[in-house]
Amino acid sequence: MNAVILTIGDEILIGQVVNTNAGFIGERLAGAGVPIREVITVGDDRAEILRGLDQACAVAGLVIATGGLGPTHDDVTKRAVAEYFGLSLVADPLLHDRIRALLSSRNIPWGPAAGEQAMVPAGAVVLPNRYGTAPGFVIERAGTTVVVLPGVPCEMEQIMTDSVLPIVSERMNREPGGAAIFHRTLRTTGISESSLSTLIGAPDSIPPGVKLAFLPSLSGVRLRLDAVGPGPEAERRLDAAERMIREKAGRHLYATGDEELESVVGRLLASKGLTIACAESCTGGSVSRKITSVPGSSRYFLGGVVAYSDALKESLLGVPRPTLAAHGAVSKETALAMASGIRAAAGADIGVSTTGIAGPSGGTPEKPVGLVWIACADSRGAVAVRQTYGEGRDRVVERATFSALELVRRRLLDLE
Amino acid sequence: MNAVILTIGDEILIGQVVNTNAGFIGERLAGAGVPIREVITVGDDRAEILRGLDQACAVAGLVIATGGLGPTHDDVTKRAVAEYFGLSLVADPLLHDRIRALLSSRNIPWGPAAGEQAMVPAGAVVLPNRYGTAPGFVIERAGTTVVVLPGVPCEMEQIMTDSVLPIVSERMNREPGGAAIFHRTLRTTGISESSLSTLIGAPDSIPPGVKLAFLPSLSGVRLRLDAVGPGPEAERRLDAAERMIREKAGRHLYATGDEELESVVGRLLASKGLTIACAESCTGGSVSRKITSVPGSSRYFLGGVVAYSDALKESLLGVPRPTLAAHGAVSKETALAMASGIRAAAGADIGVSTTGIAGPSGGTPEKPVGLVWIACADSRGAVAVRQTYGEGRDRVVERATFSALELVRRRLLDLE
Repeated sequence: MNAVILTIGDEILIGQVVNTNAGFIGERLAGAGVPIREVITVGDDRAEILRGLDQACAVAGLVIATGGLGPTHDDVTKRAVAEYFGLSLVADPLLHDRIRALLSSRNIPWGPAAGEQAMVPAGAVVLPNRYGTAPGFVIERAGTTVVVLPGVPCEMEQIMTDSVLPIVSERMNREPGGAAIFHRTLRTTGISESSLSTLIGAPDSIPPGVKLAFLPSLSGVRLRLDAVGPGPEAERRLDAAERMIREKAGRHLYATGDEELESVVGRLLASKGLTIACAESCTGGSVSRKITSVPGSSRYFLGGVVAYSDALKESLLGVPRPTLAAHGAVSKETALAMASGIRAAAGADIGVSTTGIAGPSGGTPEKPVGLVWIACADSRGAVAVRQTYGEGRDRVVERATFSALELVRRRLLDLE
Repeated sequence: MNAVILTIGDEILIGQVVNTNAGFIGERLAGAGVPIREVITVGDDRAEILRGLDQACAVAGLVIATGGLGPTHDDVTKRAVAEYFGLSLVADPLLHDRIRALLSSRNIPWGPAAGEQAMVPAGAVVLPNRYGTAPGFVIERAGTTVVVLPGVPCEMEQIMTDSVLPIVSERMNREPGGAAIFHRTLRTTGISESSLSTLIGAPDSIPPGVKLAFLPSLSGVRLRLDAVGPGPEAERRLDAAERMIREKAGRHLYATGDEELESVVGRLLASKGLTIACAESCTGGSVSRKITSVPGSSRYFLGGVVAYSDALKESLLGVPRPTLAAHGAVSKETALAMASGIRAAAGADIGVSTTGIAGPSGGTPEKPVGLVWIACADSRGAVAVRQTYGEGRDRVVERATFSALELVRRRLLDLE
């Protein structure tokens, strides 16, 4: 059973809202082993929705549509779906009572819009909405299953989790073996996509039955392994592929699955009972922000200083004026002094620092935009690395932030 | 000229990556007045890409495709597009030199993967990529324009901005009048969607020919005005609608279009010749990070302190120990002392501070998760505001960051 996700809404087309609903549905379907063929987005318009349904039903046996089920005049999805399948809208008494109870619990009077919400295409199975008045529903026709869900994310997610996934899982279990696809992700950093590809070897060096995809981003390259089911057999093949990749590129792997680098670093600090503090210049608070995005980070994060001006580098971090004068703010010497300085000022076990030129201006031939020095100080002393990231202010900050965390991880694990 | 956006990548289908690229492209096309018919996502697979191109070209005269142009074996977009149009891949000498220079500036050796990156479909126009080796390109065939861009967001965004939008705008200017749709966005903050709707009045109070949509988010409510062209006439109608809204809700508007609050605050600081410094607790560096995301912010941003521990609130910010002992770290008194403390420590004209409970743990009945005190100190003294944001660690940080910037804006403009 293949799936197509059909999201409906003008606000998605014009980029005013990012399509997180498609991401949620895709992730959950993939988790249930359902191959996803396509995501389609069309506007809130009868003819466009009919066209989208046509495209979707031509490709897949399962269509999950979302959006345009609300009570206002621009919500036309329900009527368009009914028209597509030649069904009339009928009042559902159970749904009617449920909506009445929901409205009265919120002190909202019953009105014509509510009556409209209690209608569904004749023969559709209603999927209850715990958080709102727009019901989800399922229509089965000629081997195709069309699920229609509201577009408000929390409502869609609740119906997807409580009603749709049980139906989907039950179907997948009845599929002839081998139809489901299973995924695993290995996260790497500090190595380019092409170097990683060379290290791992030709595609045919991957164990049979496993597909390997490279997913580059500013923070590193994720390796995604896909294997076709049945489940236990797919897991065995994914294990074999992961072992092979770990043998060849293990030192570049920092996590599997969804775990972020800041959470890996946080786990290492907490398990060793160490504390950390940050001294940032060009990253402007981004390293501190990343570390504190992890719940419970107050156990190991003491604080940080964002020292944009040289005066603050001296007064709060104790960088010696002669160091700044001789080498400049963007230098190995200043980075080392910043890392040691914040470690001392905060009384932390580890100090990490960044200083560089994020751009777009401020570069020179010797110190171009994108040059960043990153340092880490601990009880054994301090080390610094030099990075050149090229142009793009946000890019430079994001990459430098990631490199700072990676430097701490390597220092904590005694990797080179 | 209608457009379809075709995003290519297994990672989007399975929800591993949210489709922000489609959002960016959609927003920019909409900004140029191009009606967007559909967004299609297919996987990294030759046959699927051919099918996606078929669907896209059937619907629109402009197709913007993105993703799958990298150097590894799972990047198949370029070959699939060439096959779709019956074109062979040819080496582009100019592109070859550009890639060689980029690699050598990063100390990466030239290899077969790089040679592959220098190939484009015969007759395609190359769109230079400033940040990476994968070029964008355009193919024109039988009235259809197909633009192909890399999937790495910063690379896609740069090529879209520098090369694609000028082409698109030029085409739209040649369109017969009335086909284009024009949008204008007014950004508000500190007021709920329903209060704003009451303030503005019934839909029929909007000047004729303009559609108004409310778009709530964590940072405030955006108002989108849509008017159908021709351009000058649509602009006049949008002007009239904007004037009406400004009369009724002007004090809640902080910007129009794309301008972010941090950039508005930066403009105000620069124009008044004032400097700022931040003292953050629960926001963990997010306020400093937002302020420094604006190019040129080093003119007015001196630095900041992230004081997670009470010890750092005392030592770096000079918050008196009795204040912390009597009122706690999350209190009006501590927020005021932090704002005044960072102002003094950094020698800045303005000090801004945040202290609160981001959660998920750490809340009490009197000080629940989501409680944040925000303060601003300047030559006239210091003020503090109390906010309650409810649960969700990232939500709390994002909303508190926004409120801190808004407090500075109001202080700078002497609004209440």
